[in-house]
Order: sequence, then C-alpha cells, then structure tokens
Amino acid sequence: MFIKKYFEEIKLEENRITLGRTITETDIVIHAGQSGDFFPHHMDEEWCKTQPFKKRIAHGTLIFTIAVGMTAQLINEVAMTYGYERLRFTKPVFIGDTIKVKVSIKEKKDHKKPNYGLVTELVEVFNQHEELVMLCEHILMVERKSQA
Amino acid sequence: MFIKKYFEEIKLEENRITLGRTITETDIVIHAGQSGDFFPHHMDEEWCKTQPFKKRIAHGTLIFTIAVGMTAQLINEVAMTYGYERLRFTKPVFIGDTIKVKVSIKEKKDHKKPNYGLVTELVEVFNQHEELVMLCEHILMVERKSQA
Amino acid sequence: MFIKKYFEEIKLEENRITLGRTITETDIVIHAGQSGDFFPHHMDEEWCKTQPFKKRIAHGTLIFTIAVGMTAQLINEVAMTYGYERLRFTKPVFIGDTIKVKVSIKEKKDHKKPNYGLVTELVEVFNQHEELVMLCEHILMVERKSQA
Amino acid sequence: MFIKKYFEEIKLEENRITLGRTITETDIVIHAGQSGDFFPHHMDEEWCKTQPFKKRIAHGTLIFTIAVGMTAQLINEVAMTYGYERLRFTKPVFIGDTIKVKVSIKEKKDHKKPNYGLVTELVEVFNQHEELVMLCEHILMVERKSQA
Amino acid sequence: MFIKKYFEEIKLEENRITLGRTITETDIVIHAGQSGDFFPHHMDEEWCKTQPFKKRIAHGTLIFTIAVGMTAQLINEVAMTYGYERLRFTKPVFIGDTIKVKVSIKEKKDHKKPNYGLVTELVEVFNQHEELVMLCEHILMVERKSQA
Amino acid sequence: MFIKKYFEEIKLEENRITLGRTITETDIVIHAGQSGDFFPHHMDEEWCKTQPFKKRIAHGTLIFTIAVGMTAQLINEVAMTYGYERLRFTKPVFIGDTIKVKVSIKEKKDHKKPNYGLVTELVEVFNQHEELVMLCEHILMVERKSQA
Repeated sequence: MFIKKYFEEIKLEENRITLGRTITETDIVIHAGQSGDFFPHHMDEEWCKTQPFKKRIAHGTLIFTIAVGMTAQLINEVAMTYGYERLRFTKPVFIGDTIKVKVSIKEKKDHKKPNYGLVTELVEVFNQHEELVMLCEHILMVERKSQA
Repeated sequence: MFIKKYFEEIKLEENRITLGRTITETDIVIHAGQSGDFFPHHMDEEWCKTQPFKKRIAHGTLIFTIAVGMTAQLINEVAMTYGYERLRFTKPVFIGDTIKVKVSIKEKKDHKKPNYGLVTELVEVFNQHEELVMLCEHILMVERKSQA
Repeated sequence: MFIKKYFEEIKLEENRITLGRTITETDIVIHAGQSGDFFPHHMDEEWCKTQPFKKRIAHGTLIFTIAVGMTAQLINEVAMTYGYERLRFTKPVFIGDTIKVKVSIKEKKDHKKPNYGLVTELVEVFNQHEELVMLCEHILMVERKSQA
Repeated sequence: MFIKKYFEEIKLEENRITLGRTITETDIVIHAGQSGDFFPHHMDEEWCKTQPFKKRIAHGTLIFTIAVGMTAQLINEVAMTYGYERLRFTKPVFIGDTIKVKVSIKEKKDHKKPNYGLVTELVEVFNQHEELVMLCEHILMVERKSQA
Repeated sequence: MFIKKYFEEIKLEENRITLGRTITETDIVIHAGQSGDFFPHHMDEEWCKTQPFKKRIAHGTLIFTIAVGMTAQLINEVAMTYGYERLRFTKPVFIGDTIKVKVSIKEKKDHKKPNYGLVTELVEVFNQHEELVMLCEHILMVERKSQA
Repeated sequence: MFIKKYFEEIKLEENRITLGRTITETDIVIHAGQSGDFFPHHMDEEWCKTQPFKKRIAHGTLIFTIAVGMTAQLINEVAMTYGYERLRFTKPVFIGDTIKVKVSIKEKKDHKKPNYGLVTELVEVFNQHEELVMLCEHILMVERKSQA
C-alpha cells in the first residue's frame, strides 16, 4: 500500500515489530543458489560438526535480505533508501530459528537539499530466544512536508 | 578452497575483480520470493513505466547478495566477517545488466584483541557501462601470523 | 499484521484493490516445477505458436495462487476461509501481463453456528487492459462481535 | 501425451487415483515465495506452536496447485477447463504429510453449445491416513464425438 | 503410473518421442543455483557476446537433466537404471530453444544374472530446427518374464 | 577464474578433491521441479517406506549435476568438454548425506586434430561414509601448447 509520511511526521523512538519467520534449510539452499556462495559453513553439515558452531548457519546476506524484506510493508512515496550503516551479524542463525525485526527511529538530521531530511532507522533482528542476531542502520531520505 | 592468509600478508591497495554476471528477471522474482518484498519497483512493469526509472529495478538486497556471493571464492580460515559499512546503491540495476565486483584493501587497523587486526575491503559493483551501481566496506577480523 | 474485524463490521459493497504484479516466464517455470504440470500450453513455445492463443499461457493454478496471495495483507484473527466457489479463468494470462486483484464484499449470510456469519468476497483479477482474467468467490466464516 | 476422449466416452463413476507426493517444507517456502503469502500459519513455527494446529500448515493454494498438477497426466485435446466449484480445505496438511488425488466422474450435462457437454470431475485429496484434506469439482467442457 | 514391461516385451527399434519443452533463462538460472556452476558461458551475457557462440548457453547437465526428466513418464517396476554411456553435447542449446527427446531401443544383451537382461536405449535430444543437440545411451537392467 | 592449462601440463594421476555438500530435501524438490521427474522414489516418503531402500533417494541427474558443478572452479580456456562415459550410480544418496568429489587424470590420448589431445578425468563421488555413490569419466579436448 502506498502512503505519504513526511519527515516532520516521523517521530523519534517510534518503533514497529514485524511478524516472525522461521529460517529453513530451504532458505539457505535457495540463497546459496542465488548468491553463488556454497561455503561449507552453510552447505556442509559434516564439516560444520567439526566447527565451534556445530551446525550449518544462515548466510549473513540471507538474514539481511529477509530482515529488510520483512519490514517492506508500506511504500512511503516520499522516502527513499540512502544506504545502510553498521551492519553486524551478532550471533549465528541456525536452521529452525525464528526471527522478528524491530525497526525504531533513531535519529533525524538535516540534508543538504533543504526539502529533504535524513532519517536513521535502527533495524534489529531477534531470534526466538530474544537474542539479537543482526543489526544495522537504515538511512532514508524523506521529503519535508513544509517544502512539498 | 581453504587458505590461510594472515593480517600481515594482506597488502594495502591489493585488489581483485570477479567474473561478470547478468542480472535476470529470474533473479528478481526469486529474490522477491525469498525476501517477501514484492514492491512494484521490482514486480510491476506497468507501474514502473510511469516512474522516472521506467523499468523494473533489482532489489538492493539482491545486488548486495550477489555481489558478496561473487567474491566468495576462497575461504580464508584465519579471517571472519566483522560487519559492513557505508552500503550505498548508487545507480539502479535493471534486468539484463551485467555486473562485476572489484574488491580492494582500503585500510588495515589494530584490533583490541592483540592477535587480530581489522581489514577494510572496499567492495565496488560496476555494470556493463563501467558505472558504479553499489559500494560498501566489508570489515574483516584477521588473525596475525606473529601471534598464531 | 493481525487485526480483528468482526462479521458486523464488514460492509456490503466494501472493496479494495491490490498493487499490480507482472506475470513472468519465471513464475510459469517455477509453477510448473511446483505443480508438476508441464503441459505444452505453458512450457512449449513452438507448439503454442500453432495454437489459437499463439503464446505460452500461465497455469490457472498460478493465477489463482498469485491472486489469493496478493490479497493476503492483513490477518483477520476472527475470520477463516471456508472455501471457494465459481472459480473461472475468463481470459488467458500471457508472460508480461500485469494483474491486479479487486476484492468486494458480495454477500453476508447467517451460519448454523450462531456466533459466526458467512461472508462472500468476490475476487476479480484484471490484466493491464482492464480485462477480467479470473474470478471466484471466497467464502469466509467470521465471528460475530455480539457473541464474542 | 495427447489423447482425444470425447464426451460420449467419459463414463459416470469412472475414477483414477494418482501416485503419492510428500508435502515438504520446501514446497511451502517456494509457495510463499511464489504467492507472496508469508502468513505465520505457514512460515512461523514458534507462533504455530501457540495455535490449535500446533505446526506450520500448507497454504490452501499449494494443496490445490499440487493436487491439480498431480492429475495433469494426459492432455485431452477435446476438453478444456471451464472452472472449479466447491473448493474446500477439510483438514490441514502438515509438512511431511503425503497426499494422493482421486478423480471421479460425478456428473455429465448438456451445454448450450450443442457440440459440447459439461463434465464434472470430483477431485478428492487424501493424506497418508486416508483422511480427506481437500475436495473440489472440476468442470470441463468436452467435445461430443457425434458432432466432431 | 506403474507398469511392468519385461525384457522379452521390449522390442528393438521401438521408439517414442516426448512433448516439447522450451529452455528458458529461468531454467539456466535455477540450474546454476542448483549445481553451483556460475561459469560465464551460462551467466554473463556480455562475455558471451565476445565468444563464437555469441549468446548464453545452457549447462550440459541442465539439458541432460531435462531430457532424462522428459522421458520419465511410466515407472517400469521391473527395470532399473544401470548407467549412461556416450553422453555427448553436439550443439549448444540457447535460451528460447525448444527441445524434444526421442528414445529408441538400440540393443538387448544378456546379463550375468540370468533373470535379467540389459537394454540400451538411445536417447536423442533435438531442438526446434530438428538438430541433434545431445545424445546418450541409457543402460537398463530389466527382469526377464520367463524367470519372474 | 580463467586459466590456461595445456595438454602437456596435465599430469596422469594428478587429482583434486572438492569441498563437501550436504544433499537436502530442498535439492530433491527443486530438481524434481526442474526435471519434471516426480517419481515416487524421490517424492513419496510413504511409498519409499515400502521399498528396500526405505527412504526417498536423490535423482541420479541431481547427483550428476551437483558433482559436475562442484568441480567447476577454474575455467580452463584451452579445454572443452567432449562428453561423459561410464556414468554409474553405485549407491543411493539420501537426504542428509554429504558428498565430495574426487577428480583424477586417468588417461591422455591423441586426437585426430593434431593441435588437441583428449584427457579423461575420472570423477568419483563419495558420501560421508567414504562410500562411492557415483562415478563417470569426463572426456575433455585440450589444446596442445606446442601447437598453440
């Protein structure tokens, strides 16, 4: 659904939490196939048994992809992605883990173009044990209503 | 293939360029299916015709996924990903564009753990017109040989 | 997102229209692979050239799957699918066609369980030429607020 | 394989039963990706544990798609799908369940076009416990031999 | 469908031809993802333009997979695959080509187990120009009826 | 990565072993979808329980596809596939098995074109119990350096 939410209408600390999604073996196999990354960390159960983490782990790019996708609900016509900062994978995600994403407004800043502002969303991904498994900052350029 | 390349062995400015890969409609459809992001920017050709970019564009997370995957050739057993910084999507990638990835060593820094160093790889993605379409910094923690 | 919308709150003639989605060759190939239906109508471009419709056409089950999926936005916790009636494929959908779905409340009826009512949604799928390509009736059992 | 089986050659009560197919987690994940329906009923194992059915369940459209696909063996050149009626999902299908489809000729009727008749196939899907999990009526327009 | 066709019932020169199937970009992308083979011959349209064959070509293993799959219609309960010989890829298959498979009984031989015989099927794959693009010999062990 | 390794530079007995890869249910489901082979040996867990091998087994073409793909690391610009011989599936591969591929140079022969030689690679696939599950001979035409 398209919405228009202007820079002035975005409030600091405002947050939302997505539904959950279980990360499956299928997700990992399809992601290997899309990315071309068949590293044994993701694809070789026998080798993983010999490693500290013991089990196959999801690709970082898979968790990032799914987390960003889970937040893609409403299309804000007056905002666009500027970039991502501080992307960190803080714990491995295993097959069968269920993740949720929390998005909070962390910062609002001026942009050199006067009719835009910069909004920093903190994106945090938690597993079913409420452990943080990934985080990043999503920077958005958002139109100012006063200038529209 | 597993290798061991220690912090001391990584040289500033060293770089490598991957083979190319054409981004297909299939990649976008599979990525929508994996991420759950069916925004019309990627999925609705008719709507895209009414927009400035005119054509369906690849998801940012798709380009990031494929670019990171294209660089996943050798498994350096003494390095691990610490995170990513400054991820930017500088130009849209369209169906039929062919991308290559250049990875250059941009910075080497100490880490608080004395047997590790931090290495910053600059990851740049170019299309078939040699235009930069994505860039980011990949931060790696790498073991020091002297401490191994 | 979970919502609670009770039988009494659903109004006759109320309707909503989804975003659009372009049906791709990829959708057809993946659907053949999921369904196991590799009939030449969907998979053999040469044979299709000899037929009245001239081009490969989407599986009916693909259009039904995507149309139902496109309407799956909000999770109404007090409703559940009872079934579908009068599913018709009124025109072929070709690769490159873009579809939208219109859902309208067509009928409300009592159910033998007094704390439920039956709601009939008319589901209509249109292509980019505003031609009706599929329609069906989706029957839902919805809790009555008065009985909740 | 193409065949020609005319209206007169189709006998009431005639039936056939397909081979079996196990419904996998992969089927559900691919179906979510194709349909765009990521409802927690199908995708969130943790949430499902809190629900009466306890486990992730297959999408209705997935069971319909696979069931119809399983019956797509012979291509009757003188028949075409008119539509489906009374589609019901009578029991949930879980990951690991194995389904078979029984198709029986339920009814034969005249059609307003004199060189066609309408045939109603009853399509019933059973799981490995012989429980009915889905049923529908498939209506076909079939050419009459006498008019061909 | 299960059948029983014994060694004695298989006739030399007997042959069958499958329906056709168009090889799509999707098939190649999914095959790269399944095999892990992202060689530029299949994935890099720009590089292919510089090569004698000018266009992306299907993986040999893709054509073999699809050809063998296209012949998998009836399940002969008294036969099992012994192996394949003389697999050759005689012409490239491009995106958009449509292939058919012809299977002919080429040879029947004794097997050291007296209740089995060896049957050699010649498998030939043709494109829409009736050019041979792949061939191989499929060796089957088939039970003898006389010994059953 | 592109390399040039001429006929003279390939040594008899030379061998290499790939990383491992776990064969998943996902691989089988995707392979069925790509090949169109939905035989119950791969897809029907209930039927498999009644068979000597007890569990679903991977398609032969899946193991061949993955094995060949696992060896596709370096692109030798002066070699091309001539064909495959003696492809045998010596043991079933089950869901959860992990395979590795060993490639050894078995034979070098002259070719009628004097600037080429024929190289036979023995391709052997082993499971996690070091059992041979597949083997074949890969025949390559390789340029002679002396003639280049």
